[in-house]
Amino acid sequence: MAKEKKVAGAGSRPEARLPKGFRDIGAAELAQTRAMLDTIRGVYESYGFEQLETPAIEYTDALGKFLPDQDRPNEGVFSFTDDDGQWLSLRYDLTAPLARYVAENFQTLPKPFRRYATGTVYRNEKPGPGRFRQFTQFDADTVGTDNLAADAEICMLAADTLEALGIKRGDYVIKVNNRKVLDGVIEAIGLVGQENAGRRLTVLRAIDKLDKFGPEDVRLLLGDGRKDESGDFTKGAGLSPNQVATLMEFIERASESAALMRSAARSGDIFNNDVDQGYFVLREGGSFYQSQLCIDGHQELETIRGLLRGAGYGMNQIIIDYSVVRGLEYYTGPVFEAELTFEVKDEKGNPVRFGSVGGGGRYDGLVERFLGQKVPATGFSIGVSRLQAALNVLNAADASAPLGPVVVLVMDKGELPRYQRMAQELRRAGIRAEMYLGTSGMKAQMKYADKRGAPCVIIQGSDERDKGEVQLKDLIEGAKAAAAIADNKEWKESRPAQVSIKETDLVAGVREILARHGVTS
Amino acid sequence: MAKEKKVAGAGSRPEARLPKGFRDIGAAELAQTRAMLDTIRGVYESYGFEQLETPAIEYTDALGKFLPDQDRPNEGVFSFTDDDGQWLSLRYDLTAPLARYVAENFQTLPKPFRRYATGTVYRNEKPGPGRFRQFTQFDADTVGTDNLAADAEICMLAADTLEALGIKRGDYVIKVNNRKVLDGVIEAIGLVGQENAGRRLTVLRAIDKLDKFGPEDVRLLLGDGRKDESGDFTKGAGLSPNQVATLMEFIERASESAALMRSAARSGDIFNNDVDQGYFVLREGGSFYQSQLCIDGHQELETIRGLLRGAGYGMNQIIIDYSVVRGLEYYTGPVFEAELTFEVKDEKGNPVRFGSVGGGGRYDGLVERFLGQKVPATGFSIGVSRLQAALNVLNAADASAPLGPVVVLVMDKGELPRYQRMAQELRRAGIRAEMYLGTSGMKAQMKYADKRGAPCVIIQGSDERDKGEVQLKDLIEGAKAAAAIADNKEWKESRPAQVSIKETDLVAGVREILARHGVTS
Repeated sequence: MAKEKKVAGAGSRPEARLPKGFRDIGAAELAQTRAMLDTIRGVYESYGFEQLETPAIEYTDALGKFLPDQDRPNEGVFSFTDDDGQWLSLRYDLTAPLARYVAENFQTLPKPFRRYATGTVYRNEKPGPGRFRQFTQFDADTVGTDNLAADAEICMLAADTLEALGIKRGDYVIKVNNRKVLDGVIEAIGLVGQENAGRRLTVLRAIDKLDKFGPEDVRLLLGDGRKDESGDFTKGAGLSPNQVATLMEFIERASESAALMRSAARSGDIFNNDVDQGYFVLREGGSFYQSQLCIDGHQELETIRGLLRGAGYGMNQIIIDYSVVRGLEYYTGPVFEAELTFEVKDEKGNPVRFGSVGGGGRYDGLVERFLGQKVPATGFSIGVSRLQAALNVLNAADASAPLGPVVVLVMDKGELPRYQRMAQELRRAGIRAEMYLGTSGMKAQMKYADKRGAPCVIIQGSDERDKGEVQLKDLIEGAKAAAAIADNKEWKESRPAQVSIKETDLVAGVREILARHGVTS
Repeated sequence: MAKEKKVAGAGSRPEARLPKGFRDIGAAELAQTRAMLDTIRGVYESYGFEQLETPAIEYTDALGKFLPDQDRPNEGVFSFTDDDGQWLSLRYDLTAPLARYVAENFQTLPKPFRRYATGTVYRNEKPGPGRFRQFTQFDADTVGTDNLAADAEICMLAADTLEALGIKRGDYVIKVNNRKVLDGVIEAIGLVGQENAGRRLTVLRAIDKLDKFGPEDVRLLLGDGRKDESGDFTKGAGLSPNQVATLMEFIERASESAALMRSAARSGDIFNNDVDQGYFVLREGGSFYQSQLCIDGHQELETIRGLLRGAGYGMNQIIIDYSVVRGLEYYTGPVFEAELTFEVKDEKGNPVRFGSVGGGGRYDGLVERFLGQKVPATGFSIGVSRLQAALNVLNAADASAPLGPVVVLVMDKGELPRYQRMAQELRRAGIRAEMYLGTSGMKAQMKYADKRGAPCVIIQGSDERDKGEVQLKDLIEGAKAAAAIADNKEWKESRPAQVSIKETDLVAGVREILARHGVTS
């Protein structure tokens, strides 16, 4: 009907529609999200992180511009001016507002400052399938320390969180790299100085696409460029064949090293130093192991690895993976990625992996932007809907819609207070219940109860009222009986879906029906 | 320091500051909010309402403009254009998005559709003390029925919710009026037709200010206008003395009627029909009881009252109060207001009442805007921060900051994995714990633990390690001991704040300290 009206009344009436890239979320999904966020919150609080909530709107200059793939100014962020002409923006992540908060309250905060935050963020980007312009993140950050134990702890936190959510060891992996290693390799091939900043970014992005495109296409993106299936051409970083060869050698060794670790972990060899160290990535390398940055980065990773293994986290939980990039420009040291490794079938029956459900890293420059003094920080952000989608696949059995409320039908409009009292009596006994609030007859009321997923309805006409009775109709049994009625009439008679009980036994009678369907209250 | 820098580096560095009217919220307040929202959610779900979440951003034309006191176009709402030039706005309430949702999904929704929603809304208005540009609402609405039982239920829901939050009967009142009554009185004084729409709105707003300004100022606002203490002049509705007299008579009778009901309720006479009916407001009136609207409105209120009293809700919970206005233009029938009536002392020791913490009403036109067909609806919205502020006053005893995490000090940087394992052991036993993640010495670490509100710290230097021991220092006892040390040295010695225990008894030892401070885990 809405569609017809759109044509007929387009001039006079607004069209009821959502802007592209936004969505409405229903009760079942919201209840799952809430349970998931509570679990994450529990783990984060057990680690001593304290919640902080900053507003959705900040000054544009305070947020800065740190989105990946953001080549054009004003791209990626929803912005508007305040009454006084200053630019405001909707936050695009929870890290930039944290930096503003820390800078604003630096004198009074405990140091290190450990906070978690969850909330919606907004990206003014082109939406796609499963890619929205408003989504929820869940972040934990430790600000004000360059201690690598803070980075190691973020990895432990990520692993503990995924396990608390029911993801088994082996079904996930937390991957750790250090931006310095890759920066060092890039330095070793001579891509230095301010004049090469743009090309360095192109290189990082090309490498970040390894999982998506494969090594051959990355090679093209490092060189002259790549034409995709649709014929669109993406300009490359323009490196020389030698430079490309060095980078590709590093990338391939890094991937090989990660593969080795995973295979060791799968075989149960989860604390195997030789494999774990991944030295060979660098040690046997050629030109790229000449950069001090590279050596520093590697040594930091060794420190983190030692802390992780010492605290009992094995290669089946957290690995050093030199191929991890993370797109954000502001990372300055260790970077993290939480990946789900189990395979699921997509709609066409093809196996797919969920991939990344969160990531983070060390960003030593964000607070410095404001204060002019170094305030090192490290953190991790979970993409809530992605993770929830994965959990739904894992827990497919539990994904059935929850039961709706018990519905008290209105058989006699003069008796509304009586029906309302019945609903109240059930509520006070902890049972979700409502009186039908429409104005339609019995048939429409039954249809309403079905649509709400009601486990049963309560019926009291004048006959029952005179006898001090109510009828309970079990809608779930009723549906089964209706389905079986053609070939199994006796079954229906022996397990009637409708019973008469005394009005005073209302709560007990409803409880019995709920118990039959696995609900105890 | 931040302030000094502001001057020194203003040109090169952004200033870390929040836009006016926005605020950061800390862990203690957030935990209270969460508990409060969970209680509200529990009541709403028990009534059969299902949660729905709509996005923060909607098309401007879909939201419409229904803010109170919004005389200028584009005022009150944060708006910006999408890539395709269409106007987007941040939602200013949760009702306008609900109307869009219902219109968009009308065919498939159960009818009536009963949904609750909670989320932040945004007002581009001048902020003031306790008045922010981003705040949280909690709404319940029943859409698609003109059954007055739905309005009555909203009132019951509001009363049950406040009581579930610990607000006692007598400390709150839900006030019900009907917009039709006032519209009828306004009609009776001849303020009819499109040409008087602006004046009708001025009249409504003037009456809405009765509690704030008192009857004399309302009289001025209905007539030529009112000059406030600062000398600013507000233009009035320009009614004739006769019109003003009729309106004022109605208003004064309405207030008198409400006062009578409250006094009956206080005396325990909570189902007193003579007082409750409030007939005399209209029956003994003069010219204003000639409007059919007025009579209809009154009869609707009588129906609602019958449903409420029949369901057992007395005048000590819900009253008919003919003086309630509610500023929003879109209400078309019954309107509700939840008021907290208990007095508290303000900072200067003067008694103040909290006043309104929520309100709502029937809005039969909002979905019709889209569909062109009548879709009657009624709902209620709680102002979450206002209500929370009130609860904080009521539960002042519980408002102390919760304990922070146990902090494992780092005495020996070579033993980080060992300290981290201790923290883990505590977490796995359900105790919040963290290893110190900074790089400073013992004194700074103790200061950090104090700032975090840690109940105790765990200390293990090489001596303790060699003996397989740890030291537990109870910071709360320690602080007491330090305060008492001058005059009560023995007390300190008899209840030492620091004990040595075996490392294997870590969890038990910490539990003992937590139990001493009222925490069981």
